[in-house]
Amino acid sequence: MRSGTPRRQWVVDAAERLAGCAQRTPVFTSASINSELGCEVLFKCENLQTTGSFKFRGASHALALLPKGVDCVATHSSGNHGAALARAAHARSIRAVVVMPESAVASKVAAVRAYGGEVVFCGALMADRESALSEVVASRGAHVVPPYDDARIIAGQGTAALELLDQAETLHSVIVPVGGGGLAAGTALALEGSSVALIVAEPSLADDAARSLRDGVLYPPLPPATIADGLRAGLGELNFQILNRSYGDAGGLSIGCVSEAAIVSATQLIWQRLKLVVEPSGAVPLALIMEHGAAALGLEGKTVGLMVSGGNVDFPRIPGSANA
Amino acid sequence: MRSGTPRRQWVVDAAERLAGCAQRTPVFTSASINSELGCEVLFKCENLQTTGSFKFRGASHALALLPKGVDCVATHSSGNHGAALARAAHARSIRAVVVMPESAVASKVAAVRAYGGEVVFCGALMADRESALSEVVASRGAHVVPPYDDARIIAGQGTAALELLDQAETLHSVIVPVGGGGLAAGTALALEGSSVALIVAEPSLADDAARSLRDGVLYPPLPPATIADGLRAGLGELNFQILNRSYGDAGGLSIGCVSEAAIVSATQLIWQRLKLVVEPSGAVPLALIMEHGAAALGLEGKTVGLMVSGGNVDFPRIPGSANA
Repeated sequence: MRSGTPRRQWVVDAAERLAGCAQRTPVFTSASINSELGCEVLFKCENLQTTGSFKFRGASHALALLPKGVDCVATHSSGNHGAALARAAHARSIRAVVVMPESAVASKVAAVRAYGGEVVFCGALMADRESALSEVVASRGAHVVPPYDDARIIAGQGTAALELLDQAETLHSVIVPVGGGGLAAGTALALEGSSVALIVAEPSLADDAARSLRDGVLYPPLPPATIADGLRAGLGELNFQILNRSYGDAGGLSIGCVSEAAIVSATQLIWQRLKLVVEPSGAVPLALIMEHGAAALGLEGKTVGLMVSGGNVDFPRIPGSANA
Repeated sequence: MRSGTPRRQWVVDAAERLAGCAQRTPVFTSASINSELGCEVLFKCENLQTTGSFKFRGASHALALLPKGVDCVATHSSGNHGAALARAAHARSIRAVVVMPESAVASKVAAVRAYGGEVVFCGALMADRESALSEVVASRGAHVVPPYDDARIIAGQGTAALELLDQAETLHSVIVPVGGGGLAAGTALALEGSSVALIVAEPSLADDAARSLRDGVLYPPLPPATIADGLRAGLGELNFQILNRSYGDAGGLSIGCVSEAAIVSATQLIWQRLKLVVEPSGAVPLALIMEHGAAALGLEGKTVGLMVSGGNVDFPRIPGSANA
């Protein structure tokens, strides 16, 4: 499935391969949030997915399509993709090696190891990661499963949107966060041929996707600065192609940016009202509505699906306790 | 229903009255937690109940049984009962007055007001609360809805356990936290006549219920010290009677205490693994298994329901943000 024009059937096929493996995550709602926003919001809870993010869908799908005889996979990741790949590989008795920067958060390193993955540390630069990964591939014969710029990954991530289409009685739009673009591109494919519009939401501090789509040229990522750590990666090439072809079409894809303050407010609101632990990246779609308003986005009175992409945060202090 | 011997039918009747009003909360599970504990744990998510705690059940039930002509209810509360009563009263177009200590957490004061309740401040002592409440009753003709020592409240809180019995294919025990004892007593009634054992869990720093049941005498509460702020109240009289009559029976009720460290660890585990925001009081049942071990509690390999009583915490800092 690596060749040919990207199409919705990729996602439909992926959903069949993932049946019984990835969770069918629930949809949460809040009457008070709906009332405040002026639209009906369906929170698709991928923070409740296995390993705490949608990344488990793509990683599991890539492994379902692994060439015969491969017994070791590898990737570089400082976050959710590494843990998802380790967990998916463990379930298939395949070894997983995750190249992580020495600066990676301890809890994320621990998660990869808890899922049975091997961690290989490297320097902080992307070049360091790539050379460390090349070494793992050369020395172990490992098969690389990239985090987002990969047809198998894109198709797997799109299955969350397919589920949402099935779970929602009516749906006007879906808002997804964008970083490398695996979830955004997969969702774009999943929504093809439907009447549901796709809105992609990006932190202003990491707005390479917005600029790339506006100019029709793939720009490199900005230096990591946003609190939404899952969205710091630059848009992938295949992901850009898929998003670009429906960008600006009537009823098609649009993109909006959000401030850091809006991301924090949206994260807070989900924690407080829905009692769900969400990572800042997963609150970016809600931040878009909170910051710009349902009316300005054409969403007033509409039913909107928000992809809550993940819930992996450094451990928060328990209020009232001394473990600050 | 204020008189007569407390019995299971109270809870069954309450469930009928609450249909379409209180949420049927979901049950969450975690394969990794089960594996670590050595038993199968069903988390009954009352943190996802309307107003963020089981208190909405009892408050709504008391209002469903309100004498005709009453148009104003009142209570004193520094926490979840006040918000629940305000919300339940608002739904019935009844005024609610909540007497709160001036030291009450700002977010809890805000919650009562957000649900349309009126806040009357008082001093920090229980005597201050009672005199302020008496004044409200005298000046407004308000009907008092106590937080836990009340048959209507107990019956309402017990409906969470009835739901759990229906949701679980098999169930060996249920563990509930105890403070004033509304949830514990209601659960005891709900489980009467079943083969399901009830284990009541209490912070060691607020162990008046454990000492009262052990000695068969109702002791007053300890000064507030535990992080589990929902469990600082002393056991109510009716609640004590209900718990005491099945305490120590074979297959009946037992009680265990937990350290503050275990409460913090259990709260952390629920946030991290289940991605659910739980307040420390709601993690006390899990803390009991973590601290004492499934084997010592006779729960090894068994299916155990844990009542996650609420999710209302002071707002946690979003990791990575500056809003500490």
